[in-house]
Amino acid sequence: MKKAVEDQQTHPLFRQVYEYIINRMERGEWNAHDKLPSIRLLAEEVKVHRLTVFKAYKQLKEDGKVYVRDKSGYYVSPGNMLSPDFEDNAIVSSYLLTNPLSDIQRVPAKYQFSQALIDPNLLPNLYLSDYVKKVFDLYPKVMGTYSTVQGDEELRETLSRHFKEHHRLQLSPEELLITSGAQQAINLIAKIVLGPMDTVLVERPTYSVAMDIFRREGARLVPIEITPEGYDLEEIEALMAKHKPRMFYMNPTHHNPTGYTVPVRQRKLLVELAERYRCLLVEDDPFRDMYFDEEPPPPFFAYDTEGWVIYISSFSKYVAPGLRICAVACRYPFMDRLITAKSLADNGTPLLNQKIFLHYYTSPRLQQHLVKLRIALQVHKEIMEEELAATGWEWKAPQGGLNLWVKLPEEISVEVLFRLCAQQSIAFVPGEILDPLGEMKSWIRLSYSFANEGQLREGMRLLRAAAGSLQS
Amino acid sequence: MKKAVEDQQTHPLFRQVYEYIINRMERGEWNAHDKLPSIRLLAEEVKVHRLTVFKAYKQLKEDGKVYVRDKSGYYVSPGNMLSPDFEDNAIVSSYLLTNPLSDIQRVPAKYQFSQALIDPNLLPNLYLSDYVKKVFDLYPKVMGTYSTVQGDEELRETLSRHFKEHHRLQLSPEELLITSGAQQAINLIAKIVLGPMDTVLVERPTYSVAMDIFRREGARLVPIEITPEGYDLEEIEALMAKHKPRMFYMNPTHHNPTGYTVPVRQRKLLVELAERYRCLLVEDDPFRDMYFDEEPPPPFFAYDTEGWVIYISSFSKYVAPGLRICAVACRYPFMDRLITAKSLADNGTPLLNQKIFLHYYTSPRLQQHLVKLRIALQVHKEIMEEELAATGWEWKAPQGGLNLWVKLPEEISVEVLFRLCAQQSIAFVPGEILDPLGEMKSWIRLSYSFANEGQLREGMRLLRAAAGSLQS
Repeated sequence: MKKAVEDQQTHPLFRQVYEYIINRMERGEWNAHDKLPSIRLLAEEVKVHRLTVFKAYKQLKEDGKVYVRDKSGYYVSPGNMLSPDFEDNAIVSSYLLTNPLSDIQRVPAKYQFSQALIDPNLLPNLYLSDYVKKVFDLYPKVMGTYSTVQGDEELRETLSRHFKEHHRLQLSPEELLITSGAQQAINLIAKIVLGPMDTVLVERPTYSVAMDIFRREGARLVPIEITPEGYDLEEIEALMAKHKPRMFYMNPTHHNPTGYTVPVRQRKLLVELAERYRCLLVEDDPFRDMYFDEEPPPPFFAYDTEGWVIYISSFSKYVAPGLRICAVACRYPFMDRLITAKSLADNGTPLLNQKIFLHYYTSPRLQQHLVKLRIALQVHKEIMEEELAATGWEWKAPQGGLNLWVKLPEEISVEVLFRLCAQQSIAFVPGEILDPLGEMKSWIRLSYSFANEGQLREGMRLLRAAAGSLQS
Repeated sequence: MKKAVEDQQTHPLFRQVYEYIINRMERGEWNAHDKLPSIRLLAEEVKVHRLTVFKAYKQLKEDGKVYVRDKSGYYVSPGNMLSPDFEDNAIVSSYLLTNPLSDIQRVPAKYQFSQALIDPNLLPNLYLSDYVKKVFDLYPKVMGTYSTVQGDEELRETLSRHFKEHHRLQLSPEELLITSGAQQAINLIAKIVLGPMDTVLVERPTYSVAMDIFRREGARLVPIEITPEGYDLEEIEALMAKHKPRMFYMNPTHHNPTGYTVPVRQRKLLVELAERYRCLLVEDDPFRDMYFDEEPPPPFFAYDTEGWVIYISSFSKYVAPGLRICAVACRYPFMDRLITAKSLADNGTPLLNQKIFLHYYTSPRLQQHLVKLRIALQVHKEIMEEELAATGWEWKAPQGGLNLWVKLPEEISVEVLFRLCAQQSIAFVPGEILDPLGEMKSWIRLSYSFANEGQLREGMRLLRAAAGSLQS
């Protein structure tokens, strides 16, 4: 390795050491379970500080390239695959079992802008406790009883009525499956629908965990941009005709991360396209009720008459997230297969969680709570926007949801900013992770829903300052 | 179709109609979503009673071959795969997404001998309610908070201490992952370890859902008999050398369904074999505490020094089954991968469930409860054995667990007996479902843990009578 030259912004020293080691692994100089040189030895070899080597080793460990054993050193991890293959500008595929979003969110941070979750302090915790106690009085044996695979009948009946009243969805309780959160729902659907080499249409940007799940099934991803005006339906049709995707994974209402909402007129048209090209629409809708001024348009599911839409309605974000209750609505015979997949996954969501959810969900308290929550979220959003106003960065104010999707000037390296922020205990999500094409390197997702008002202001100021230090 | 001849025991009439329809599907006379002839029409065509056609259609629907729409008739289900390929006497593979055990257990029955679960009335439900309320006092924001992916630290610390004290397992909290039940644990492990065409060693008979999960990953199953004396270690070594299995899925303590327990001397030897042939041992241990007289031998995990055993310790059966809490113990770097797989599956088990479990698990009440439960289960077992004594059927009395594994005389068709029993609301599990080779047609699994004492006696008498009606 050439004598390392420090270039803090584009190629920090520890990154160079990192790549040095990766290259040697790829060339076969080290194999799975081989012991890497000690930190001291490598530092002498490449003439850098031991701390720099340590940083590189730490990053390698976080990336799963090496592991530590018995405090005795670093060893090469087996099974490391090379970078994704790019077959086509529009298609990317990867077989790495990774979850970079989860890795980021796992790091504790004082100014927590990386988790699109709601601050527990904004949830009515004391009232939830009351409902739990009520559940035990109503169902004394709930802890000793398993739910059916499909989910508690009383809960499905209640949800079916709710969907009819609120969204005019014609839905029987038999067309609902209760899952342990939306992520499980995505997993079950992917398992049934996707085989190796199948194509999935995804928004660009999108929820990265969904991409990781699809890739793990061996599927190829075809991206379609989402904009404040929705999608380019002609482009969607062209992609459907060309790639014959099995499904289109979408989050068209208060989209994560952009906050955009696909307009009504596109909803019916897209359902018709799905039917014509036999492409399932998997509609993930966790942020529907987190609107600021007015309710969003009805779900795509409301426009579907032939069974091409699978509707994932997750209440986790604001109704006792800790319970992890989600409902998947779809028609038969797909529901038969989904139930079998659920039986193999865990044979049924815990009954206790379903009953607690049911009783809280039907309480008048929830509606009051939702009203307050919407106001609180709007306040949070406005604080973040005020702090951003001073920067000159670009973003579109969302009509709902938990995030701002912000474009930074090209001269600022988001990668460097991310690390600077990490040092100051500020976390956010670099846009690159949410882009199927792995680009969008100037965008970042900032969640305003988790930090409190003080942390929002302070964190944003520190973020601004860090970014400022990277500008000329 | 030749005029149907009734042969009640070996080839009942509705079965002939069933196969008639299946053959036409396989020959392509009907395709996915085609409407089948009406019951009346088919009955006239093949000259059988309409009820017989109805039975056949009903069985086809239960088997996923047809579905019902709008009460307007029966339609061919898409995606029906043909029967499993048998490549080798020892290896079976299948790509059907099925769960026959779950299908059986889903049918309500008055005399419920098919669910290896504990009667909720035997669980201390009132005390559990108290603990739940205590949890809310201790952790007021528990409903609004997500767990970490790996699981609540307090819970993992407690379990780590428990494993040290009870099984002398050297285990840090970092080497434990909390999952939402043992089935999820099996899924995560299978996803990481198995790729298409990989081989899995399984016991014969075994837990059928695990087989379904492995097959779904495209793996091939190689069976090894489990006997009252344990395994044939020489045969295991030969199979490991020949097939190079990636893992051996085992349930060696109060095995389900047989009740056998692998003796101590085989445990260390098998761990050594696993290390030599680089075959992971996945030890599923849900029935450890359900012993009658004396504690079983330590887990295989206790004999493992090199990280070849993955230990699944599920408490669900007797500690608040409704919570679905399970702990997976394994060494790094495998644990890193397991955590990533968990993050993709559902990003963490609900915190509420973990905290409730933790507080109940550490209570003196649980130990008292366990003592009573063991006695109750032994009473149940003895009732069932008394009723069986009159039959002359064969079984080995287990030292623990929830089931009897019983061999019927060859002249009795278990398939026919199953249907006769279903008509009388008696459910059990035909051994065929639990056999990787799909044989063992004379065995049945009878669970004594779910029905109450009265139902046990009555149900067993009816079962005996039904079997008697099938004998000459």
